[in-house]
This record gives sequence, structure tokens and C-alpha cells, in this order.
Amino acid sequence: MIKELPEIFDLIIVGAGHAGCEAAHAASKLGLATLVLTNNIDRIGHLSCNPAIGGLAKGHMVKEIDALGGIMGLWADESGIQFRRLNTRKGPAVQATRAQMDRSRYLFSAQSTLFSLDHLYIMEAFAEDLLVTSGRIRGVRTAFGEDFYAPAVLLTTGTFLQGQIHVGLRSSSGGRLGDPASAGLSHSLRKLGLDLGRLKTGTVPRLLKESIDFSVMQEQHGDDPPPRFSFRGAPRTLRQIPCHITYTSSSTHECINAGLDRSPMYQGLIHGTGARYCPSIEDKVARFPEKERHQIFVEPEGLDSHEVYPNGISTSLPLDVQKKMLQTIPGLEKAIIVRPGYAIEYDYIHPTQLTPHLETRAVQGLYSAGQINGTSGYEEAAAQGLWAALNIYARSHGTDFILKRDQAYMAVLVDDLITRGTSEPYRMFTSRAEYRLLLREDNADERLTPLGRELGLVDDAYWKIFTARQQQMQSLKEALRSMVIRPDQSTVKILEQIGAHPPKRSASLADILKQPSISIRELKPLWSGLDDYEDAILERVQTDIKFEGYISRQREMAERIRHLEDTGLPRDLDYTRVSGLSREAVEKLSAIRPETLGQAGRISGITPATLSALQIYLKMGKKDPQQDKDH
Amino acid sequence: MIKELPEIFDLIIVGAGHAGCEAAHAASKLGLATLVLTNNIDRIGHLSCNPAIGGLAKGHMVKEIDALGGIMGLWADESGIQFRRLNTRKGPAVQATRAQMDRSRYLFSAQSTLFSLDHLYIMEAFAEDLLVTSGRIRGVRTAFGEDFYAPAVLLTTGTFLQGQIHVGLRSSSGGRLGDPASAGLSHSLRKLGLDLGRLKTGTVPRLLKESIDFSVMQEQHGDDPPPRFSFRGAPRTLRQIPCHITYTSSSTHECINAGLDRSPMYQGLIHGTGARYCPSIEDKVARFPEKERHQIFVEPEGLDSHEVYPNGISTSLPLDVQKKMLQTIPGLEKAIIVRPGYAIEYDYIHPTQLTPHLETRAVQGLYSAGQINGTSGYEEAAAQGLWAALNIYARSHGTDFILKRDQAYMAVLVDDLITRGTSEPYRMFTSRAEYRLLLREDNADERLTPLGRELGLVDDAYWKIFTARQQQMQSLKEALRSMVIRPDQSTVKILEQIGAHPPKRSASLADILKQPSISIRELKPLWSGLDDYEDAILERVQTDIKFEGYISRQREMAERIRHLEDTGLPRDLDYTRVSGLSREAVEKLSAIRPETLGQAGRISGITPATLSALQIYLKMGKKDPQQDKDH
Repeated sequence: MIKELPEIFDLIIVGAGHAGCEAAHAASKLGLATLVLTNNIDRIGHLSCNPAIGGLAKGHMVKEIDALGGIMGLWADESGIQFRRLNTRKGPAVQATRAQMDRSRYLFSAQSTLFSLDHLYIMEAFAEDLLVTSGRIRGVRTAFGEDFYAPAVLLTTGTFLQGQIHVGLRSSSGGRLGDPASAGLSHSLRKLGLDLGRLKTGTVPRLLKESIDFSVMQEQHGDDPPPRFSFRGAPRTLRQIPCHITYTSSSTHECINAGLDRSPMYQGLIHGTGARYCPSIEDKVARFPEKERHQIFVEPEGLDSHEVYPNGISTSLPLDVQKKMLQTIPGLEKAIIVRPGYAIEYDYIHPTQLTPHLETRAVQGLYSAGQINGTSGYEEAAAQGLWAALNIYARSHGTDFILKRDQAYMAVLVDDLITRGTSEPYRMFTSRAEYRLLLREDNADERLTPLGRELGLVDDAYWKIFTARQQQMQSLKEALRSMVIRPDQSTVKILEQIGAHPPKRSASLADILKQPSISIRELKPLWSGLDDYEDAILERVQTDIKFEGYISRQREMAERIRHLEDTGLPRDLDYTRVSGLSREAVEKLSAIRPETLGQAGRISGITPATLSALQIYLKMGKKDPQQDKDH
Repeated sequence: MIKELPEIFDLIIVGAGHAGCEAAHAASKLGLATLVLTNNIDRIGHLSCNPAIGGLAKGHMVKEIDALGGIMGLWADESGIQFRRLNTRKGPAVQATRAQMDRSRYLFSAQSTLFSLDHLYIMEAFAEDLLVTSGRIRGVRTAFGEDFYAPAVLLTTGTFLQGQIHVGLRSSSGGRLGDPASAGLSHSLRKLGLDLGRLKTGTVPRLLKESIDFSVMQEQHGDDPPPRFSFRGAPRTLRQIPCHITYTSSSTHECINAGLDRSPMYQGLIHGTGARYCPSIEDKVARFPEKERHQIFVEPEGLDSHEVYPNGISTSLPLDVQKKMLQTIPGLEKAIIVRPGYAIEYDYIHPTQLTPHLETRAVQGLYSAGQINGTSGYEEAAAQGLWAALNIYARSHGTDFILKRDQAYMAVLVDDLITRGTSEPYRMFTSRAEYRLLLREDNADERLTPLGRELGLVDDAYWKIFTARQQQMQSLKEALRSMVIRPDQSTVKILEQIGAHPPKRSASLADILKQPSISIRELKPLWSGLDDYEDAILERVQTDIKFEGYISRQREMAERIRHLEDTGLPRDLDYTRVSGLSREAVEKLSAIRPETLGQAGRISGITPATLSALQIYLKMGKKDPQQDKDH
């Protein structure tokens, strides 16, 4: 079949980083004729910063993306050269998967998937201007004068808008080191009335592998077997290789302090705000002067790569300071810098200007996702890309795709952004979720796959795997609850051997499992049927049973305020007419325009009294004939 | 072993295209501590234009590079997805190898080879300025303020110097589509007194494979078995795939003519001169209005790539014209443009400012190679890169590496450039060589491998292969010359069967082989010993024997003028003091400063009388005590 170019697309995506790729995959899989415009096709899916995917709260989002039928998890599984499960000794809510990527393999996975999608069109072009009439997006104009049309445009421009790269006191325009920045779109957005801010992020110097003395570093291997991201069953793993750990020293810190007079951050050359939780090494040294050393996690860049990524020493100090600093770090004394560390400043959209669909309120049909919305991280970007694409698709069918904070980390992410905004690159943490026992990595499929199926993004093969697993879990739970053991002599002996307290009277296996020190595998001598279940199933059922009480309490909490989430606020509500609101409340509500009472309650400075006033107004409003006339 | 950064390098190469890669490989293999500075490491070895290597005169240079111990032939052999020998029905001088490349595989080959070289250091940096003191190069300053030092700097900047990209009447700065241009170095070069010109080249729109109807095109397969470039024995070939052929039509030409009012070429926006022999499709249509159609060679971009390269329709017409034009071409009616065709203008060094070592006369130790010297083509670039590197190495050992025009195409290339200069991108043709029967593809090893061995670039394994092959050829030649057959009845019968004229009296097999219609393989019934030799050997010996007369005549011609090539002209010769020279001759000789009488004779406008005057002056000069004082 010969692929034909549509005259009008359903969706145009500007950018092909992690937000753009995820959106492109989902939208075109759902049948939207989707056009991706990128400055450089060969960079589609490039991991611009560190070569790893996942980690705390981030692994959660990768699994959520996967559970909905998204693609990041599969690409990461195909490209991983070291997989680990973090926090395995802590509670199930904060356990997460993290993997090192082979950078070039990830690129290959992304590009081959995207180019094989029927409804996706990829073109190399600089998006220069947005075509808007009567407050509605019409399309995109490129630098070479081509116009492309669609009723929806999604901006996923990462760090490219007015990107400015800093190394020491020198700076130059660039969207990434080696890539040109984009200026036109910033102008367009400002012209359309959007308020742009300035953020900053940074990256480490990349080092030549052959110049590093790994023998003095601590080696860190992945887990065996490697845990994977996708619920769909994993592809064959690449060869697995270790990372290495080293530390800065007091001499490193002296070097850095001596170089601060040429730091673009400390000399006021950088106006954008950096990420508090992903600081540069000069920030760490300046902010924690008492700390004797900082860890550096030396990550491989790929199986065939000759570069390594010394995670932990992101810096925009001058190159001579970068070099001197390395000389003080065990194993890196002779390290050769292949690409310099640098900071980059870029424009972002203050995300309080977005609806929960990630649509700009200024221009109907104009969406944004990823770093342009003020976030940091591949996973945060991909989650927003998927979220925006699903909304664009759903809305073209008269519905929408908005999850609640008790359903997914990506909902926490979007709600935080649009409700509270952000003045520094926003990174996800498990602590940002109020229902984190509900939002585990392991149950992401249970939470989201039925929704992905309903939307049409979860295919038959995946659905079959999902339902089979659900049935298995169900049958296992039932079995554990129905298998009752009596505390006779032989049972007591077994129980004592595994360190369990024998029950006073008959008890189910589920009851025994609730004892904190007992793991489900230890119940095998009591019931050999457990052998029929694979480890992943055993663990998930164990979590469900052990944490039953906590989980149902969080669920009740979520339910209790669910009515607030379900009470919509009109988009055009005139808050000055709501009696009992402070001036601050009116200003904030008018600016952020929350969609629900729940969202309104999360705006900083909005009190329970304000919520009551709004509730009263809404109830009155329904009866007020005057108001009906006005609207 | 841990790799350490030297304080002073032996050589700094700016750029990592085909000239830079070849130079980097040779210099570091020879033990020079070599630093490569590139704007983007991930683009090292990128095939910016069409995905093919070799062809007429170009294949010759690839084999010459290989014969000297260079690398391009090996990378091409590793990455080829279709190999063909061109002109097999024509004479041996114009037969050549051409291969389609898998673009991403070529990149991988280049990057993995270079990163594994002990003495090579690769860094991502924008070279911004040249460090020069007292007319001598000292090193390079980068955009981020780092200085690197070396007594030799080689510029291989391709199209990046003040690169300006044109599509229709719109233009933007860029070194390649998607890559930023470089401005600093042009300023440096001008400041140092170098005269820069402006050239233009162009490329085709890249098309989505899935949008093309191949069924209406002619399929073209490669040869089986695939001929290879390297004399070293070839690696396993990748899967071989076909190209396709289609043609423009009169409607295409109408489209193009209708678009000329928005052509940057025809509207005077482009000031650089384009390549006469590699014209854009609008040039072809304008210059040959009588031609009904032009061939388009649809080349695959790689085994996994979704793009194709429609070789033959390079264009800088506006995108809407590019699209309309495609609609008129059989099989491309619905073609989707993934990356636009464009023209690029860039600065180049007028190469008459270079010595035969490719060193600038303005700055000692500053060399240049590739497109910056006014050439076009990957092979021309690589040949110059190797030439410059070998000279830098040889001169650090008190000698040099200058081949004569009867030794190699690369010598013709360098001699043409430095003697005649070029006002348009210079491309190699077999017709540029006066001794092309000596400069065949097949005997490149015979011509050059001993030189490469002497320099140290040909390793033991290669040398063993070479000497074994030479011995085989020698023994085969001797056998053919010594095997005498008498025209008895049975022999005559065999000879008649193979279409040979039976000799009147006894004749050697070599004599019979000289009959034009007889091929060496047909002699097998007369001597089964031929079965012991592989095809390549048989063919080369056949050429040597069949063309013995012509070859020795060319050799004699070359010898006859060799004394002119061996007569050096002092670098500081004051031509105004040579009596009998016209003003034109004085001007040209003073500008170009030929190194030998032979080179002087090839300057346009220099007559035999001028040469005689120079010869007399040189003879006199040796006896003139006054001149000795002056110098």
C-alpha cells in the first residue's frame, strides 16, 4: 500500500523528543492522521541527558504509559543494558524500576517504530509560526514557507525555544549542544498572549571510557533476571553491563569553589531557574558545604559506545575547571572530556495557562507537553505527550481523558502543573502523590489497562495477557483466602520453621500472610499450589493482601473527596460575582480557572472557606434565573 | 591501558567528514597524537549527500586510498548494500566500482574504527579561531574558550564555513540541514590573509519509501558476487538490495520552468558557483531544453531506513514546486518529502594558495582538505584528507609525500587544485588524467601499496596479502609468456573454437591473449593451469598483457617529462628577475608559486617559451654569485 499525504492532518506535533514520540505513537495508533515536524530526523528519540530511564516515581510513570498502551516502556526494554529494581527493602509504594539505556539502540527502536506506523507522517522542518484564526489553531508554518493544517497542534519543543547554552562565561545559541535553537515559536506564543518563563537545566561532561580507571571504583551490576518495564512481556535483553560508583573529594570542592567566579550561574548570566532536585555539582557544593563528598554514578552510554556519563556532576563551569575537577576524582584523574558539560536556558509556558487536557486556554486546539510545560525528565515528558494525545483523540470523539490523582502519577503531574504552576523544572517524586499505595508500579496495569483498552490503544494481544494475569491473581487471592489451616502439630512445626506465629484457631493462608515477617514464597510447604504461579503474580498478590488495610484506607480517603473532583466549575465563571471570596482567591481562581472544586482546593492559598463559598454559589446558581440569562 | 590527553598534539583536525575521518585514521595509525574537533560527534562519518561511494574516477580514488592503507574502502565494504562494476564493456582504464551504502551502518563503521584508535582523541567543540604566531600555526581555540595546541592543523570543514541554506526564496544559516554553520573560522582565515571564495552545492528531497510506487520503475540489481573496494579481502557483505530507475517528463520540466521565478539560483540569491557536472534539476532543464527526460536513480538509504534518495533531482526550488514536480514523475506521484531538497553556499579557500602538501602558503603548519579546497564528493575529500595527513607525518620526519600525475588520481586532483585552482566545485573524472591507462582501479595496489608500506600505514597482514598477490601475478605472467604452443591440428581446432586466429608459427599464450577478441578464461582448454588462479588475478594479468603496448607508451610519455617534474623551483623565486617572462607569466607564477617546472607548465597561459626561460634562469642562477648573496 502506498502511503499518501493527507491535505489536512488530525494532529501536528512539533518536536520528536520523548513527549513528541509518545504522543505521535499513541495518536497515530488510534487512527489520527498525525504529522511530526522535527529539526533533525536522525535525532528522533534521542536521550539528550543521561542514558537511563525509570527510577523512583519515574519508573511508575513508564509503567503507567505502558499500561495505557504507550511505547516508552517497550523501547526501554529493547534498549536496556542494565535493569534494577530500587528500594526492594522498602514498602511496595516506593519500589521502582530503573534501567541504563544503550543510547543508539533506543534511537533505533524509536525511529523504526515510528516510521512503521500507518497514520504517522514524519518531516524534517523548522516550525516557525503557528497559524491561528479567531482564537483557534489552524496549523503550523515552517521556516521554508510550507503550511501544514490540523485542528490540533501539540508543542513538544523541549529545550529548543530560544535555547541558550552556557559553558563558563561563554554562551551561544543552541537547542542542545550541536543543534540549532528555535526562535520563531517563542515569538508566536507571546503574540498569542501566552506568558513564557525561562528555565535552566544542565548536563555533565561526557568522558572517554578508555581514559577512566574503573579498577578503583565500586562496580554495580543490575538484577538477575532483569526486571522490565512493559506488562506486555519483554523482548530479549541486550547484553547486561555494570555501572561504576565514585565520589568527589574535598579537593574537588576546592576546585569548584575556586571556579565560581567564572560560573554563569553564580555570576548572574543565567536567568532561568534550575531544578532544585537535580542540581549542578557547583550547586551541591555551595548549598551543602558540610558534605565531604558527593556520589558519582558512572553510567555506560551503550554496548558499543566509547563514552560514559558521570551522573552527579552536571556543571556549567568553564572547561578548564571541569578538567581540574575531574583530576581530583578517584578513577577520573585522567578522564578526557569528549563533550563538555553545559547549562541550557530555554523558554517555557507557565503551565497554569493550560486546561487539564494540556490545551492552552489562549488558543483552542493548541496543546503543549514536556519540558515546554516546565517539567524535567524523559518520563515526565512522555507521560504528558501521551496524556495530550489521548485527550486530543478523546475530544475528537466528544469525550476526554482526565485521570484523577488517585489513579495515576501522570494525573498528579498534570494536576500539579496546571493548578500550582512551577517556577523551576518540575520533577516527579513519590512524595507528590497523596495516594501512593494506590499508585504502585506493579498495579499500573490494573489501574490503567482497562482505560487504554476502552480508548483503543491496548491491542488484543496485550489485552489477552492482561486479562489472563488478572484472572490468575484473582484465583490466587481466592485460594489464599479459602485455604484454611488448622493449627495441628505438623502445621505448627512448619509455621515455626518459617518464623510465623501459629494461629490460635483455624486461619486462612491469607491471614498468615498478613504477618509482617512472612513472605508468600515461604507458604509453599503449606500449599504446593503456589508453585503454579510466577513470581510477579505472587508478589502482587502478597502486596494486595499484606497492605489490604492501608490500601482500602487510601481508597476511602480518595472516595471521600471524590465529590469535590466531580463538581465542575464553569470555564467562564466570573469569580468577582461569587460572594465571600477574598481578592486573592478571586485573582488566583480567575488566573488558573480550575475545572473542578477539587482542583480549586489544591491552588495554594485557597482555603476550605473559599471552597464552601464556591459550593454555595454553584447551588444557588442552578436556581438563579438571572445567572441563566447572563450565560 | 588508560588513555591520557597529551598537552600538545601532533595534529589537530577540524571537522570529521570524509576528509577529516581519513586524515584522522591515517595520522593516528602512524603514531601522531591527533585531535579531532567536531561540532557533533554523532555525525562523524555522515554521508550528507547521496548514499553511495565510488563510481568513475571516484572508485579509483577509493582504491588508491585503500592501497595506501587508508580506510574509506573498508568502511564502504562493510556498509555496502549494492556493489556494481561500471563500464565493464569499456576499456580497463574507465572501469570502476560503485556501491550503495547503508547510511547508518557507514556511520557506525566510521565511529567505531576511529574511537578504537590509540593515538586519536575526539572532542565535540566548535573551532572558533586559529592560534598563529609569526606566521606559524600553534593551535585552535574553541567556542567555549579552550585552546588546543599542535604544530599542524588540518581544516576539513566541508560546507560549514558561513554555510547558508536555500529553499526557494527563503534562506537560513546552517552547515547542513539541521546543523549549525560556523562563522569564526572564516574570519580567522581572512585575517590571516587567505583569499576565500564562495561555492554552492545542493541535494535532493529525501522521500518516504512507503509513499513510492516501485512497481512502475525499472529495477537495478548489483553484481553477484559483489565487487568490493578493499584489496585487503572483504568483510561479509550486508544483505544486497536493488535501486530503481525512473525519469522526469515534459510535465516535470514545465513545473520546473514555472517555478524558476522563485528559484534562488535563477533569481540571483545564490552567489556561490555550483558544480557544472553535478547540476540541479532546474539547471539541467534550463541548459538542455531539448532533452525530453532526465534519469532519476532511486537509491535506498539503508536496510532499515524508510527514506530513499532520488538521485538526479537535486534542487533548491520552493517546496511547493518540489512537490508538484514529484507528482509528474512515474512512481513518485504521491511521494512524501521527508526532508526538503536544498542548496547550500559556503566559503572555500582558493586552492592555488596551497603547496603540494596541501599546506597554506600563508600560515606554516596550516593545512586544508576536502570541500574547503573547492572540491565536491566524498572520495575527493577523503583522498585529500589522506594526502594531507601523510604529508604532515612525512614532513615531521624530514621528507614529504607527493605523488606525480602518472602515479595516482589523487595526485591529479591535488596538482589540478593547487596549479589551476577552481571556480566551481571540482569533481574528478577519468578524463582529467593524462595517463589513465596507468591509473587503473585494479592496479592501485601495485602503484601505491609499497609506498603505504614504506610510510608505515600498510600493516603486516595487508602487506602479506599484497606480496602474495604480486607473486601470483608474476608467476602467471611468466607462465603465459613461456608456454609456447605450436599450431598443430588439435591446437588449431581449439583456437578456432574460441574464435582466435591460429598463429603461423609457434606463439606464447601471452601472444594469443593479445588478440582483441580472446579473453584469458578462454585459454583454459590450452592450459588447465589457469584454473589455479582466481578471477581477479586473471583479469589483471590479462589487462597487463593485452594493453602492454599502450601502457608502456604512457609510461614512456610520463618518463619523458619526468625531468620537468624533478626540477624544483625555489619557493621564494623572484619572477620579476627572470628575463624573457611576459607580465602575465610573472603574475601567475608569483601567485601560484609552482614547486616544479612540470607544475609551472600546467598553469594556464604558461607557454613552452616561459618554461625555457625558467630553465635557463635556473641554470644561470646556480652560477650567479649575486643571487647566492640575496638568498
